[in-house]
Amino acid sequence: MVELDDPGDPRLADYRDLRDVELRKSLEAEHGLFLAEGEKVVRRAIEGGHEARSFLMAPRWLDGLADVLELSSAPCYVLSEALIEQVTGFHVHRGALASLRRRPLPPVDDVLAGARSVLVLEDLVDHTNVGAVFRSGAALGFDAVLLAPRCADPLYRRSIKVGMGAVFSTPWTRVPDWYDALPDLSRRGFTTVALTLGPDSLPIEEAVAGVDRLALVLGSEGHGLSSRWEASADRRAVIPMAAGIDSLNVAAASAVACYAAARR
Amino acid sequence: MVELDDPGDPRLADYRDLRDVELRKSLEAEHGLFLAEGEKVVRRAIEGGHEARSFLMAPRWLDGLADVLELSSAPCYVLSEALIEQVTGFHVHRGALASLRRRPLPPVDDVLAGARSVLVLEDLVDHTNVGAVFRSGAALGFDAVLLAPRCADPLYRRSIKVGMGAVFSTPWTRVPDWYDALPDLSRRGFTTVALTLGPDSLPIEEAVAGVDRLALVLGSEGHGLSSRWEASADRRAVIPMAAGIDSLNVAAASAVACYAAARR
Repeated sequence: MVELDDPGDPRLADYRDLRDVELRKSLEAEHGLFLAEGEKVVRRAIEGGHEARSFLMAPRWLDGLADVLELSSAPCYVLSEALIEQVTGFHVHRGALASLRRRPLPPVDDVLAGARSVLVLEDLVDHTNVGAVFRSGAALGFDAVLLAPRCADPLYRRSIKVGMGAVFSTPWTRVPDWYDALPDLSRRGFTTVALTLGPDSLPIEEAVAGVDRLALVLGSEGHGLSSRWEASADRRAVIPMAAGIDSLNVAAASAVACYAAARR
Repeated sequence: MVELDDPGDPRLADYRDLRDVELRKSLEAEHGLFLAEGEKVVRRAIEGGHEARSFLMAPRWLDGLADVLELSSAPCYVLSEALIEQVTGFHVHRGALASLRRRPLPPVDDVLAGARSVLVLEDLVDHTNVGAVFRSGAALGFDAVLLAPRCADPLYRRSIKVGMGAVFSTPWTRVPDWYDALPDLSRRGFTTVALTLGPDSLPIEEAVAGVDRLALVLGSEGHGLSSRWEASADRRAVIPMAAGIDSLNVAAASAVACYAAARR
């Protein structure tokens, strides 16, 4: 427990300017760290086996996490809420912050071992959506998540927060080979079902009927799936929608598709 | 078309400080206005019959909306993007802004006329969620939306944007009487189905099976439904979820419930 009163203290470097997405991306990559925010999420990160570099807390948040802090040998910096706001650049509603070490991503084999229902995300760009998809997948019985090389980072603070820490309980990794990602899953015994508005799509319920090992494939917010992924999936599926309406956003679509898949 | 070069011009008062939620709430209520952002959403607002007070555009956005501007007698203020940012307090990615007149809310009778599937939102606080629910409802075949007196404003800029303008195409209003809102719907021939984690909840698919006129009832992000609404609904329903997982967020839950309801 280290009380600080200087927001410029170099020991607080991990927590600078949390709203500056570009700066955070490079800072976190360079130092191999990620940030968790809020008592519940910090607790889940530590309980999920992630090693803390440090914690940053306002005094009134210490009690709720006392047991978690005890488990860790990392320093806990204590600052007033006003000073925390100066460091991070915004008012941290849920008080507790932790800087944690990134671990090497596990091999695809490990993530898929024993999995029956897998989400595969291509190039989502919005951290909120990535978090929402992890959360819905976990709630609706999906066992694992695979990400294309360029999909937005599920360990970005906002992804973790929106996902309520599901990224810590769901095995996930990135596929090394974008081009052959879906054929590779087919070879492993998964039926790959791509969610798309394309013309040969089946209603989702029909597309997943009778499928044992399922890989449900989602594309980016703007343009959906790449033509390569759309064409190389075993099946294409659509959520039946009212005429003339914009499609569901990817978070809503993934929730519906996971629900339909969970009942296959 | 009025070119301006002073971000302090009083004619731009409708567009000030768009990120200051509290200020916007009181400003918009006082002047009976709301703001639409982005070419597609502005177009839908005008096509939905909303009267513009004014438009605010950067030069490169004029062409895309030329036909819409022609339909309206309201002034269109043209400012550089840098000056628009000074007025609004942030970078307006999609350029076009319009300030529109709020209309009196229609009576519940009008909104429910002919409706078979209605969403009823209690006290959602997050504008993003309100917009997402409108969008999912419209995509999945819901005909109308009713809001409790304290539910967040669907005409707030962010609600409209996330909802892709579904609030302009879906009939909606506020119920005047919070306490008896659900019994009143039952008297009108709707079966009210409340989404809740409560102990006597049926799986959603079972709860909506065979229902003709359906009112699907959703509670707030934090605490869900009030006990009054939970108890006064005809049925309670749950989305079956994996053990030990936090519930779905309200946007995901509403998408799943609308999907299940659409297939009843």
